[in-house]
Amino acid sequence: MNYSSKILEEAIEAFSALPSVGKKSALRMVLHLAQDKNFKKEKIITSLQSIINDLKVCQNCFSYSDTELCNICSNPLRKKDQICVVESIKDVIAIEETQSFSGTYHVLGGVVSPLEGIGPDDIRVHELVKRVSETKPDELIMALSPTIDGETTIFYISKLLANFEISISTIARGVAFGGEISYADEITLGRSISSRQPYSQKASF
Amino acid sequence: MNYSSKILEEAIEAFSALPSVGKKSALRMVLHLAQDKNFKKEKIITSLQSIINDLKVCQNCFSYSDTELCNICSNPLRKKDQICVVESIKDVIAIEETQSFSGTYHVLGGVVSPLEGIGPDDIRVHELVKRVSETKPDELIMALSPTIDGETTIFYISKLLANFEISISTIARGVAFGGEISYADEITLGRSISSRQPYSQKASF
Repeated sequence: MNYSSKILEEAIEAFSALPSVGKKSALRMVLHLAQDKNFKKEKIITSLQSIINDLKVCQNCFSYSDTELCNICSNPLRKKDQICVVESIKDVIAIEETQSFSGTYHVLGGVVSPLEGIGPDDIRVHELVKRVSETKPDELIMALSPTIDGETTIFYISKLLANFEISISTIARGVAFGGEISYADEITLGRSISSRQPYSQKASF
Repeated sequence: MNYSSKILEEAIEAFSALPSVGKKSALRMVLHLAQDKNFKKEKIITSLQSIINDLKVCQNCFSYSDTELCNICSNPLRKKDQICVVESIKDVIAIEETQSFSGTYHVLGGVVSPLEGIGPDDIRVHELVKRVSETKPDELIMALSPTIDGETTIFYISKLLANFEISISTIARGVAFGGEISYADEITLGRSISSRQPYSQKASF
């Protein structure tokens, strides 16, 4: 493509490196920013500089943080005896969005995957065991993806924690709310029948 | 939403100000950038700083430029006697992409729109007349949107240039290549019949 300006071309190049942003969207973003007078450019620059210089990883849960301990771990209202184990920071944000969990998190940074050569030492399993042995929480909620690798990771962690007095649970799996039964895949549907729950007139959401 | 980090939250805020980027996409972009190790953050910062500090408007065609004259206007291979009049810089890039125009441009920065209170003095009409009177080009190609406002602008410019020896053309309008005739709107279809062209065995693309 032939641009009238090299600066424009380099900005389009930089923005098209973002996930699911192609040349056309990058062009729209860059032209929008070039014409903008509300300091959108400056805000993006400042926020990226903060990420480069100041963004830390929480020393307790390994989520992103501004200080040694993240806003969730340092919040006195969050239950410290409940730890939700997730694969990535994205999952922390997804669960926080539901506003139905008031404990703390532990970000593994991946799941054990023998096929991809990811072992327990490559993710933060030992950090989790150390935290459990030090803080003695009551419950570990395993919110990992329902894949073979996720199941393997849960199995491995539960073995490591066998000597601790801690209840380990997994998030419920089944047919999604609003989903049609005929569209659910067979494994999900099969498991949601075998792990059926007694009906209660109180709605459970 | 409850983020573990204020820095993350502010970055998501800054990116969701981009066109057609919602909170979810902004979150994906920011997490991607936070984890990136290929200097994507730095490239975006540098490119935005260049836009703030160095991006100019070409003094000849009013497209974006790095110097007094843009890469197109200063290119000796571009025909200076052919000026394509467009509404915005976006149109320059779209036409450059087609690689079928080797003249220069004039960016109006809008079209005359009596309903929205945009008159000829609000866009770069007088700059165009000045350029035509100074450089005496052979042809003006009006590549404006086929709307009432676009037609009004073309009419107004052609009146202003009535005393100059210059041929004024508009880009061809009609049914799009690959489009189905039954899906074309009635005005487009009607006009494309009334401005039908003699068939030639040489394909015209």
